[in-house]
Amino acid sequence: MAAELSPRELRDHIRKRKWTQPTSGACRGYVQANLVMMPQEQAFNFLLFCVRNPKPCPLLDVLEPGKFEPAIAPGADLRTDLPRYRIYENGTLKTEVENVSAHAHSGMVSFLLGCSFSFENAMLAAGLPIRNIEERKNVSMYITGRECRPAGPLTSKLVVTMRPMTPEQAVRAVQVTTRFHLTHGAPVHIGDHRQIGIRDLSRPEFGDPVTIRPGEIPVFWACGVTSQLAATSVPLPLVITHSPGHMFVSDLKDEDLTIL
Amino acid sequence: MAAELSPRELRDHIRKRKWTQPTSGACRGYVQANLVMMPQEQAFNFLLFCVRNPKPCPLLDVLEPGKFEPAIAPGADLRTDLPRYRIYENGTLKTEVENVSAHAHSGMVSFLLGCSFSFENAMLAAGLPIRNIEERKNVSMYITGRECRPAGPLTSKLVVTMRPMTPEQAVRAVQVTTRFHLTHGAPVHIGDHRQIGIRDLSRPEFGDPVTIRPGEIPVFWACGVTSQLAATSVPLPLVITHSPGHMFVSDLKDEDLTIL
Repeated sequence: MAAELSPRELRDHIRKRKWTQPTSGACRGYVQANLVMMPQEQAFNFLLFCVRNPKPCPLLDVLEPGKFEPAIAPGADLRTDLPRYRIYENGTLKTEVENVSAHAHSGMVSFLLGCSFSFENAMLAAGLPIRNIEERKNVSMYITGRECRPAGPLTSKLVVTMRPMTPEQAVRAVQVTTRFHLTHGAPVHIGDHRQIGIRDLSRPEFGDPVTIRPGEIPVFWACGVTSQLAATSVPLPLVITHSPGHMFVSDLKDEDLTIL
Repeated sequence: MAAELSPRELRDHIRKRKWTQPTSGACRGYVQANLVMMPQEQAFNFLLFCVRNPKPCPLLDVLEPGKFEPAIAPGADLRTDLPRYRIYENGTLKTEVENVSAHAHSGMVSFLLGCSFSFENAMLAAGLPIRNIEERKNVSMYITGRECRPAGPLTSKLVVTMRPMTPEQAVRAVQVTTRFHLTHGAPVHIGDHRQIGIRDLSRPEFGDPVTIRPGEIPVFWACGVTSQLAATSVPLPLVITHSPGHMFVSDLKDEDLTIL
């Protein structure tokens, strides 16, 4: 069972190409992370962007230029241990690959950012619904009208995920996710999507639409995709990210990141 | 009364040299911050040091090179609005001045870090003792034996503050300060000082010793002085910090920084 694999076992499978699919549901209880690699020339500004926008861009680990073994997963290699990567050149998606050893040069700085998988486990444990899991879809993601705080030339609108639930469940979801401040934390909005500049809930910019049942309201959390928009908001020669859903699985446990 | 001044009024007094003393007790309820300015060549590594050591170095604001008006205090100028500054050259303290307009050049990056004054107000409100305030002393600060995570060439031992209290009060203090995760948060240690490499509680490296009464135990919090040791751990041509106790007073309220 993928859920019972240790992170080290999963990374080994990935490195040997025995595992090439998304990591959702794998290594249950361990922290999965968004990856952004970029040239050191803009690394200060990108780090600044993350510090200024901690809810969408919660920093789990940042590596010195040319280093690819993160402190949160000794023995791992960020160039080979994710199932799928995206390569951006001059701000434009060029290709998807299964290994970036040939791309990730000594001037690249790697950033690992928290991901909502961490609090989804806690929500499920609290009996809260996660509709996209029930419907076997990707979570709905929307580009809002809210500008993040820029950093140097880097800018992005805030991207959010949405999970529908009853108002009573939304109160409990605030409590449960507040503990996970390094994996997006409490919601950024509840209810009317127009207040945050989302036009149509049935047409997410990323992921799939999900069913909103009578009596349910949409609940919105800051989303790590924001960091990818920021990283590609200027025409850098090279930016490398994970492919959606194909995350880096660390040795940290979700509980290691809770504040309470 | 200094406690009733608005941050803008206090900063104006400081800029006009009508206020030259420490800021402890001024503008009650508003966030006071540690200042570190350093050349942009090491700014990425210093930012990385703070991200890797968030308990001693909680980032409140970081400014682009040559910018001195922080987002957390519109209209302020970091070169003139602190009562006293320290100037380090090649890692060594050279002088203390009341204005750094002549020193802070366009290649300097300014960092504002959280300070324990924020949670001290909350502790007092909860009826917890703060011995150094009772005894009108500076808080006791110690250099522990614990290494922070380095970043590039920057290193430091963890520096802590200490406040004595009963075990029952210590439990309450954990609860109260946990909310203030951007101003050092929960204690890093309780009890035996030798476990964290402190030899003699009566001889703090910075600040003053305070009375520990029978039945009390020392409670230790991460301290922002750690950031000054890291910033001066390599011989940079220029590092500017606030002088101890002479903090930057922002427009943020302490409550703005709480997680719960």
